[in-house]
Amino acid sequence: MNTCSVGQTETKILKYDGKIKLSSGIDFGPLEIAYETYGKLNENKDNAILVIHALTGDAHAAGYHDVNDKKQGWWDKMIGSGKAFDTDKYFVVSSNMLGGCSGTTGPSSINPETNKPYGLSFPVITMEDAVKVQKILIDYLGIKKLIVTGGSMGGMQTLEWAVSYPEYVSKAIVIASTARLSAQGIAFNAVGRNAILSDTNFNNGDYYDKQAPEKGLSVARMIGHITYLCEESMHKKFGRRLQNKEKPDFDLGIDFQVESYLQHQGSSFVERFDANSYLYITKAVDYFDLAEKYGSLENAFAQTNASFLIICFSSDWLFPVCQSKEMTKALVKAGKDVSFCEIDSPCGHDAFLLEFDTQTEIIKSFLKKDN
Amino acid sequence: MNTCSVGQTETKILKYDGKIKLSSGIDFGPLEIAYETYGKLNENKDNAILVIHALTGDAHAAGYHDVNDKKQGWWDKMIGSGKAFDTDKYFVVSSNMLGGCSGTTGPSSINPETNKPYGLSFPVITMEDAVKVQKILIDYLGIKKLIVTGGSMGGMQTLEWAVSYPEYVSKAIVIASTARLSAQGIAFNAVGRNAILSDTNFNNGDYYDKQAPEKGLSVARMIGHITYLCEESMHKKFGRRLQNKEKPDFDLGIDFQVESYLQHQGSSFVERFDANSYLYITKAVDYFDLAEKYGSLENAFAQTNASFLIICFSSDWLFPVCQSKEMTKALVKAGKDVSFCEIDSPCGHDAFLLEFDTQTEIIKSFLKKDN
Repeated sequence: MNTCSVGQTETKILKYDGKIKLSSGIDFGPLEIAYETYGKLNENKDNAILVIHALTGDAHAAGYHDVNDKKQGWWDKMIGSGKAFDTDKYFVVSSNMLGGCSGTTGPSSINPETNKPYGLSFPVITMEDAVKVQKILIDYLGIKKLIVTGGSMGGMQTLEWAVSYPEYVSKAIVIASTARLSAQGIAFNAVGRNAILSDTNFNNGDYYDKQAPEKGLSVARMIGHITYLCEESMHKKFGRRLQNKEKPDFDLGIDFQVESYLQHQGSSFVERFDANSYLYITKAVDYFDLAEKYGSLENAFAQTNASFLIICFSSDWLFPVCQSKEMTKALVKAGKDVSFCEIDSPCGHDAFLLEFDTQTEIIKSFLKKDN
Repeated sequence: MNTCSVGQTETKILKYDGKIKLSSGIDFGPLEIAYETYGKLNENKDNAILVIHALTGDAHAAGYHDVNDKKQGWWDKMIGSGKAFDTDKYFVVSSNMLGGCSGTTGPSSINPETNKPYGLSFPVITMEDAVKVQKILIDYLGIKKLIVTGGSMGGMQTLEWAVSYPEYVSKAIVIASTARLSAQGIAFNAVGRNAILSDTNFNNGDYYDKQAPEKGLSVARMIGHITYLCEESMHKKFGRRLQNKEKPDFDLGIDFQVESYLQHQGSSFVERFDANSYLYITKAVDYFDLAEKYGSLENAFAQTNASFLIICFSSDWLFPVCQSKEMTKALVKAGKDVSFCEIDSPCGHDAFLLEFDTQTEIIKSFLKKDN
C-alpha cells in the first residue's frame, strides 16, 4: 500500500490565452496552468478525480520526478494502484493554484505586457478565482463529471467547486477544512504576512533579481507550522528535549529540539516558495467564506448536487472539528447527502498528510457508494 | 469594587551593590530593582503579599502615576481597599523582573563597567534568578513571611518562590500558569525571538542609539497576542468583520478588524518594551521546568511549606487546564495543602487580567484560611 505505485511523472503546462473575470472584477490573463495526471481517463470521461493541494503545495501530488531522487508527491500514499484514489479505476488530476509559484501563473511569473515578474501588480485572488482556473483545465481535458477532493485549503476549493459548478461535481471529499476562515485563522495569516512585509529585502514585492525576503518568509512559515501541529504531537515529537546537548547553553541561540525543527522548516521552505505567493494565497484563504454570497451556509449548499464526505481530525485546532460539524449540519439542513467522519488522531491539522490508513478506508467506502 | 482605590503611586528604585550567583554560574551585579508598594507593612512584618507580573508587565500593578492620565496599574482591579488583595489588611509589593526594561536592571541598563547599555552582554537568566532578585527586595523591606501570587509567567515565579524559599512563603496563588513550558510554548517564543533577530535593525542587540528593531518586536508581540486570546474570544470580539469598510479592498493591506487590532497591539507594544528584554525574558520562560532540579514535580513540591491555590481558565490554550491539574496532582502526592479552581471563561489566557469577580471571590476565601 505504501510504496509509490504511480511511477515517474512530470508536471505539464496548459497555456490559456483568454482572460478570466476575477472576484475583484479584474479581467486577468493569459494563464499557464501546471498540472499532473495519474491513471487513464475512460471513454465516457466520467472517472476523473480532481485533487487540490493545501497552502504551499503544488501539482506534483503523486509519483516521483527524478529517477535518482524518487522524492514522492505530497499525497503519494493516497494516489495510485489500490490506494484511496485508485489509479486502476480513476483518472486523477492535480494542478498548482493560481497565484502559486510552481508552474501556474502567479506573482513570480513574467507579465507578458512588461516582460518583468508581476510582483505586487499581480491581482488579489480568491478561492473562487482559483477554482475558475482549475475549471479551464478540466474543460481542456474534456471532463464533464468529476469527484473533487482536498485537505485544508484544498478542502475550501472543493467546497467552492461543489457550489460554483454543481452540474460537474458528483462527489466532494472535504478534509481537515472549513467553510470560512475564523478570526484566529485570519490573525495567524496576518502575522505571517506582516513578517514578510517587514523584511527589508521585500522591496515592495520587487525582489526577483535581488535577495528575496527569506527571513520574513521563514518566520511566516514557522508560525504556520506551529498551527499545523498540536500541543500533543509537539510534546510527543520534541517534549523539552535539548538539541544535541546535555545542558542549556545559557545564550540566545537554539537550545531545544523544537526550536531547531522549526528553524529547519523555515529555512528549507524559502528554497521552494515565493514570498509574494505566500501573501496572495493567505489573503485568498482569509477571504474564504462560502456562505457570504448566499446569505447562509445552508443556502450555499442548496446550490450543490454532490454527495459530500466531510473528514476532520480530533486534534486539529486550526480547522477544528466543530467547523466540520457546522458544515455537515448545513448540508443536512439543505437536504444533501453527507457523511461525516471525525478521525481520532494526535497529529493536529497535518493529520490529512499523515493518517493514511483510516482516510483510505473511509474514502474507499464513500467512493463505492452510488450517487 | 472596580474603581481605583490605591490612588497615586510611584515606582521606587532599590540599589543593590552586591552580586548574585545566576543559574548559569555567572556572578552578576550591581542591580537596581524597580518596585511599588500598596498598603502598610504591619509591626510583625507578616502581612505582605508579593504580586509578580507576566511576560511584559512592570512594577506598576495598582493605582496611577500621572494625576492627569490616571492610567491604572495592570492588576488595579485586584489590588486595593476591599479587593482580592485587600490593602486595608495586606502590604502588597510588586517589582519589575530582572532582565526587564521598566526600572529593574536589564539589557537596556547601563553597564557600569563600560558606561554603555549591556545589550547582548547581559547574562542569560532564569526564573530562579528573577526570584533571587525579588528576594533582595523582600529582605530589604524586612519581610520574613509572605504570600506570593502571579498570573502566567508570574505564576511560574510564584512556584519558584515556594520551592526556593519555603521558610518564607506561607501561601502561593498560582494563576493561569504551568510548572514547565510545553514544546508548543517554546515554539511560539522561538518564532517571536526569530522575528526580532531577523530585523536588520537588531544589529546584534546594539541599537540603543539607533533605530530599534521595532518591526521584529511588533511581529513577536502579534504572535504572542494570538496565544493570549482564544478562538472563542476572537470570534466574539472580531468575527470576520471588516475594518471600516463594507467590501474587502482586494489588495494586500488590512481588511479585517482582527488584523487591525493585532497591528495596533504590535505597534503600541514597541513604544513601551525593549526587544532585548523580550529575548531574555522569553528565554527564561523557555528554561522554566520546576521539576528539573528535583527529578520530579512531586519532589520539587516536597520542598515547600506553603498552602497552594491553583487557578486556571477553561479556554486558556497557552497554559491549559491539564497543566494546572498536573501541578495539583503533584502537590497532593507530595502531601501539600492545595485548592484547585478551574474558572469557566471565554477569555483565553488573558482571563487572569479580565475575570476579576470570580478570581476575587476565590482568592478572598483562600486568604481567609488559616495556614
